[in-house]
Amino acid sequence: MATEPVTDRREGELALADNPDDMRPDGHVVFIGRIRSKWRQRSECPKNMRAAREAGEPASVLVDPPYRAGLAGLQRASHVVLLTWLDRAQRDLIVQKPRQAVEASGVFALRSPVRPNPIGLHVVRLLRLDIAAGTLELEAIDVLDGTPLLDIKPYLPSVDSIPEAAMAGGRS
Amino acid sequence: MATEPVTDRREGELALADNPDDMRPDGHVVFIGRIRSKWRQRSECPKNMRAAREAGEPASVLVDPPYRAGLAGLQRASHVVLLTWLDRAQRDLIVQKPRQAVEASGVFALRSPVRPNPIGLHVVRLLRLDIAAGTLELEAIDVLDGTPLLDIKPYLPSVDSIPEAAMAGGRS
Repeated sequence: MATEPVTDRREGELALADNPDDMRPDGHVVFIGRIRSKWRQRSECPKNMRAAREAGEPASVLVDPPYRAGLAGLQRASHVVLLTWLDRAQRDLIVQKPRQAVEASGVFALRSPVRPNPIGLHVVRLLRLDIAAGTLELEAIDVLDGTPLLDIKPYLPSVDSIPEAAMAGGRS
Repeated sequence: MATEPVTDRREGELALADNPDDMRPDGHVVFIGRIRSKWRQRSECPKNMRAAREAGEPASVLVDPPYRAGLAGLQRASHVVLLTWLDRAQRDLIVQKPRQAVEASGVFALRSPVRPNPIGLHVVRLLRLDIAAGTLELEAIDVLDGTPLLDIKPYLPSVDSIPEAAMAGGRS
């Protein structure tokens, strides 16, 4: 979906010459469901999964009927990775200055929703799964209500958990 | 890219009535770079990041020129999440039987490259970053040489690392 360009660019921010929103597609995504959350406005939406867990508001996923058969076996997972399509974010800000940050950063050093391909990555605890109804109840989520879903993957600590990883001088 | 349907469907496998490859797009992706790996054939490509790390073959990412400014600040990260577009995988197998598995599973309980939206998720150690050249040297990778890149995110243990997560009765 095309979005209005944000006009209040902050100091040090840099836009791409070509907005990916208007570029020739290299591939296409299909929405397989939607996130249901309490968050209706950007201002109230937690900025990351840590803040979402702290807010203590459960959320859910509704998977569209054709894709529900793909949930078989997921009841064995304690946590899942959700990939979402952040359809309300612009795509052309390659260097950004988050509101609290001292200086601007490249988009690939940030978890901002504003990115060339606006794919959100969320590691969430799975509380309950109803395959027939296509619902996953989640401990928490950090996206707006109605955000489209692209994929669900089981979270596997052997490949996904790196406790000793570090972001020097930044958020850990 | 359209792919040839795999004809040797295994026992218990189930295809979607509508192949996402042929469906109306809900959104589009742009490729921001490519993975360079030693893996040229599916048969030799590690099946997951654990196997890739064990193989001990470094790999790299080449980011296209317009997107290189987005790498600023990433030198602070020890690990990154790469999202790739697995363009050689079919998209319509909703229930699959991996070669070693006893029974078929829903795609969302598997990390198979075959999925409605063929987005690969890889947590990798970053060995070296050259922003001007657009190169990231990686410890290892589990995708074929030339695989398109969609996104790079800093790996943040506070939101991404869940050592106690479990996949009951399955791979951990």
